[in-house]
Amino acid sequence: MNIVIWLSYDGTRYDGWQKQENTDKTIQGKLEAVLERLSGASVKVHGSGRTDSGVHALGQVANFHLEQELEAGKVMEYLNRYLPEDIMVWNAQEAPERFHSRLNAVRKTYRYQIEMGPKKDVFQRRYYYGLGQRLDIEKMKAAAVLLTGTHDFKSFCGSRRMKKSTVRTIEEIQFIQPEALRLHISFTGNGFLQQMVRILAGTLMEVGLGKRRPEEMSRILKARNRREAGFTAPSEGLFLEQVEYGDFL
Amino acid sequence: MNIVIWLSYDGTRYDGWQKQENTDKTIQGKLEAVLERLSGASVKVHGSGRTDSGVHALGQVANFHLEQELEAGKVMEYLNRYLPEDIMVWNAQEAPERFHSRLNAVRKTYRYQIEMGPKKDVFQRRYYYGLGQRLDIEKMKAAAVLLTGTHDFKSFCGSRRMKKSTVRTIEEIQFIQPEALRLHISFTGNGFLQQMVRILAGTLMEVGLGKRRPEEMSRILKARNRREAGFTAPSEGLFLEQVEYGDFL
Repeated sequence: MNIVIWLSYDGTRYDGWQKQENTDKTIQGKLEAVLERLSGASVKVHGSGRTDSGVHALGQVANFHLEQELEAGKVMEYLNRYLPEDIMVWNAQEAPERFHSRLNAVRKTYRYQIEMGPKKDVFQRRYYYGLGQRLDIEKMKAAAVLLTGTHDFKSFCGSRRMKKSTVRTIEEIQFIQPEALRLHISFTGNGFLQQMVRILAGTLMEVGLGKRRPEEMSRILKARNRREAGFTAPSEGLFLEQVEYGDFL
Repeated sequence: MNIVIWLSYDGTRYDGWQKQENTDKTIQGKLEAVLERLSGASVKVHGSGRTDSGVHALGQVANFHLEQELEAGKVMEYLNRYLPEDIMVWNAQEAPERFHSRLNAVRKTYRYQIEMGPKKDVFQRRYYYGLGQRLDIEKMKAAAVLLTGTHDFKSFCGSRRMKKSTVRTIEEIQFIQPEALRLHISFTGNGFLQQMVRILAGTLMEVGLGKRRPEEMSRILKARNRREAGFTAPSEGLFLEQVEYGDFL
């Protein structure tokens, strides 16, 4: 049977989503270890996408096949009992046999959280980038308009070895201020390149600090050169918020 | 000059508020170390009260005397620059010379946070007690009525060596459910004995679980015996929320 799960995790102490040979501190690795204990066989967990080291998730989606017929709710209970405190499965259901959480994803939303005040809230400190300076959000919105739509985002790609298409569509960039000195930027699109959200967030912050003009965004996109875009914002402020599957789920 | 500060801290990695000989991991110790660096002299920080190891604060209040005349805002900036990420000063002002944060406190509010769901939210896990069971909140409210008012709370005192009066007044016990499976209980009163809030929270949880009847509260108070009350709820769920000073500040 094919089971799909929705999970949240605090990425602080992990080396990212993807299982690696040289570390057992990955989200995928933790999930597979518990599922192999449950099923007595090797289990491969497919995520909707990798998250980098230190990146968090509110709504990561993953699926895996089990030989046994088990209730999805029981599998979720078992996972939550044996997973560490910083990984939680909050929903689980049986999926069509051919469902694949990465291949069938049609839309994703990431959120980048910035603290503009002099010091981060002590209870939220692991989930914010501490910029410590005020941003001109109107300028950032003007830049965001130029980044929205279908573009070649090669300038915003952290991987040099990317040989496939770097064209993606950003449907929406939203700016939310939950408090006067906090800014959340959420990016919704059909797919994101490696470190793309962090480079977008870093570039937008440079606009908000007056280091770049909003109009530069068009030139940066055209250049197709990572060096033209801004800094890669730290992973601690980034959340994978939601993955959508259209009519599939 | 006498400076009063308001601070929040994540108590997880501290051995409580009060400076101790055998550990440098106390809130008071961290504050005094930074202030001594600032002033070049020994500084004694007075807190509104001690918090136990692992207990958090949203609005702890403390004061200290400095030989130099400095702007309170500058002292706050200096503290935030050199204090660790899990301690933050969010307000500072000059206080009357004879103001003392413990002696002049007229009212305090503590909050105890309980997760009733099977697993704690990963981003809030350090700030909730993970009960993992549903509570009958109406029964807890009935018990809380009997605990409100002026009573001898010796049964709810964690210290055996308490020689002074154990009479205190609880003005209000409030139950708030920020989400269906989360419960916050806040206790407002003129003063609290050692571990009193945690023992009250533990006893109320036992009522909510059906292990004790609400009416038992009167008998427990009368007994003046720690063994008659419920368990001491873990420190991770406890916050010192607010300290009030009447007209003094």
